[in-house]
Amino acid sequence: MEVLESLIQKNDSKILLVVLDGLGGLPVHNGKTELELAKTPNLDKLAKVSALGMHIPVDVGITPGSGPGHLGLFGYDPVKYQIGRGILEALGLGLKVGDTDIAVRGNFATVEYRNGTPIVIDRRAGRIPTEENKRIVENILSGLKEIEGVKVQIASGMEHRVAVVFSFPEPLEEGSDQVTDTDPQQVGKPPLDPKPKNPKAQKVAEVVKKFIQESANLLKSEKKANYLLLRGFSQKPKIPAMEERFGLKACCIAVYPMYKGLASLVGMEIVEVKGKSIKDQIQTLKSVWDKYDFFFLHIKKTDSYGEDGNFEGKISVIEEFDSCVPDLLDLRPSVLAITGDHSTPSLLKGHSWHPVPLLIYSPYVLGGTSDRFTERECLKGELGIIPAKKIINLLLANSLRLKKFGA
Amino acid sequence: MEVLESLIQKNDSKILLVVLDGLGGLPVHNGKTELELAKTPNLDKLAKVSALGMHIPVDVGITPGSGPGHLGLFGYDPVKYQIGRGILEALGLGLKVGDTDIAVRGNFATVEYRNGTPIVIDRRAGRIPTEENKRIVENILSGLKEIEGVKVQIASGMEHRVAVVFSFPEPLEEGSDQVTDTDPQQVGKPPLDPKPKNPKAQKVAEVVKKFIQESANLLKSEKKANYLLLRGFSQKPKIPAMEERFGLKACCIAVYPMYKGLASLVGMEIVEVKGKSIKDQIQTLKSVWDKYDFFFLHIKKTDSYGEDGNFEGKISVIEEFDSCVPDLLDLRPSVLAITGDHSTPSLLKGHSWHPVPLLIYSPYVLGGTSDRFTERECLKGELGIIPAKKIINLLLANSLRLKKFGA
Repeated sequence: MEVLESLIQKNDSKILLVVLDGLGGLPVHNGKTELELAKTPNLDKLAKVSALGMHIPVDVGITPGSGPGHLGLFGYDPVKYQIGRGILEALGLGLKVGDTDIAVRGNFATVEYRNGTPIVIDRRAGRIPTEENKRIVENILSGLKEIEGVKVQIASGMEHRVAVVFSFPEPLEEGSDQVTDTDPQQVGKPPLDPKPKNPKAQKVAEVVKKFIQESANLLKSEKKANYLLLRGFSQKPKIPAMEERFGLKACCIAVYPMYKGLASLVGMEIVEVKGKSIKDQIQTLKSVWDKYDFFFLHIKKTDSYGEDGNFEGKISVIEEFDSCVPDLLDLRPSVLAITGDHSTPSLLKGHSWHPVPLLIYSPYVLGGTSDRFTERECLKGELGIIPAKKIINLLLANSLRLKKFGA
Repeated sequence: MEVLESLIQKNDSKILLVVLDGLGGLPVHNGKTELELAKTPNLDKLAKVSALGMHIPVDVGITPGSGPGHLGLFGYDPVKYQIGRGILEALGLGLKVGDTDIAVRGNFATVEYRNGTPIVIDRRAGRIPTEENKRIVENILSGLKEIEGVKVQIASGMEHRVAVVFSFPEPLEEGSDQVTDTDPQQVGKPPLDPKPKNPKAQKVAEVVKKFIQESANLLKSEKKANYLLLRGFSQKPKIPAMEERFGLKACCIAVYPMYKGLASLVGMEIVEVKGKSIKDQIQTLKSVWDKYDFFFLHIKKTDSYGEDGNFEGKISVIEEFDSCVPDLLDLRPSVLAITGDHSTPSLLKGHSWHPVPLLIYSPYVLGGTSDRFTERECLKGELGIIPAKKIINLLLANSLRLKKFGA
């Protein structure tokens, strides 16, 4: 057992972790970042009396995806616990992934049958519209619910993309997901057979092969999307739940499926949000405040605008969140942390490796180091630059949920 | 061998490490910490020309006991070298613990004999006064000096508490201390037998069992304190001495037994202090200045007042120490480090997880980063926030006791 886990004690404290997705930025206008340009009177006030710092999601210079970004914030080493692509895609499309499931990314392709052999002529089925994708999944593939006792769920993604989850009736050994991709990666070739890389994956490969055949039969009359290519078979990683590791009954208040999925991987309960705005999320937070110890509030749009390179949009979400800060404080959390899962500078139009601003508010901070909650002001703070996975230590310490180490 | 150890070279430099126990604090008055409220003209002057920073005793968010707090400062990984409760208790009560010793915490309890079987009716013997405890240990248990060739030492603690050290004539294997506690943890039950958790602990368990029986016989006529419950059997951990690891002939100048004990664990020589004041300690330091390379000067009262929540008391000790700084500088140490083993904010009335201010004065520092020796000013310093166990690297480097790594 790790030192941290050996020191856990329970109490009635409430820990609120707010994740503004892709929060950190770079100068976009007059040498100022999105956080610096935003008008944030409430965050400014809070920053003056909080512990500030920066966190590094995975490692110096490493740009994280959403999976590693969030696992770190939840207290899990994102290098130790890696989440397969198939799992993330399935979670992102709202599918649930259980312990005996295999998830995989897929995409519709166009094949031509030559002497009965399918030959790929378009690996992305002409990037069919998302609506087409939905029609096919809902009307045509809906007949395919089970293969040899294994339940099958398919979810439409954007354009030609799908995710598939195979739910086995029996426990799967670790390594059962070691099945080769079926995408031949070039046109003019037949799709590859899914092959087991080890004997444990034999059964999964057989089911997948049958699934591909049956789906191809159902798709035969389609002009473009008449075949499914699958890649990234993956099992749910074995992750001890937050309650088991930290003694925290945790819940997730998120709007987008991916983040609910990530939260469920560490055992958080998913609270359904009525509506989609930050206000709606906070309303939901209030309604379950008595039921949990740890609350993960996920705000998506900072990242979305960052990805679009829309710094004004990102600023407006930061300002919208700022207006909600008093509502969060009204809940009187024992510890309030505000941060991001990674930086998404509008300048880069994508996730980045930059450290992420971090604010921790509790009765037991030094404070008084900084004037605002921005990248440059956080660098002056008392927390320094720490790995994301250590944030949980601070949340537990500030909520007095850790015993002393040694006498 | 670690990189550090491979680079050690000797010279005539003198390293002085001053530990103000529990030094770091949190705002207690007008938003200021104990260090900020204290008038410290000498430390202020020194801080302006020193390397400043903070250290983290064990890990982010982890509150250390005195053992891990000091081991880190001495250059030892406090997670790798863990000191058993029994050892610390014994050291704290002034018992010496050698390589073939087993130490244990104990407390007087009240038992009632039913059909000859002792039944615990008060696990703390009514919290007898410390004077009672002393009387019993000195007058009644003093008859119990040896069990089957194993020497026994008992030391009185506060109220019902004692520490016992069993000194075996022969070397003990690692794991010989794996003996179960005898406290049944509830009244109405008989004390538990000490049982070996593995075959190596067989002999120790037998001696302990006999000790408990013989002590119970001696205590029979006592009304309250008529039985000893023992818990936390522990061996001295195998720790390479500072001289072996760092080539430093080290000594300890402390008043309280616990810190002398901790210093002795890493091979420091314990210099007896005549008197108890900081001035007395510095007088002692001067008297042995020619004899050692490394001097550990431990000042206790900052922690004691912090634990009491008495911030004014803590301030007064800081100011008393400040007045002694010129005397320390008069010794012309090659390197002077001033820090704490952990923070003890008066606000928390106990040890805490907060980083601890650190000052290193030598001819080879940058300096000029900060105006005072306080938490917030140390955050601006050139050392950043470092693990305590790395401080020894800086002490060795600044005393030019490290060769270049690689060509």
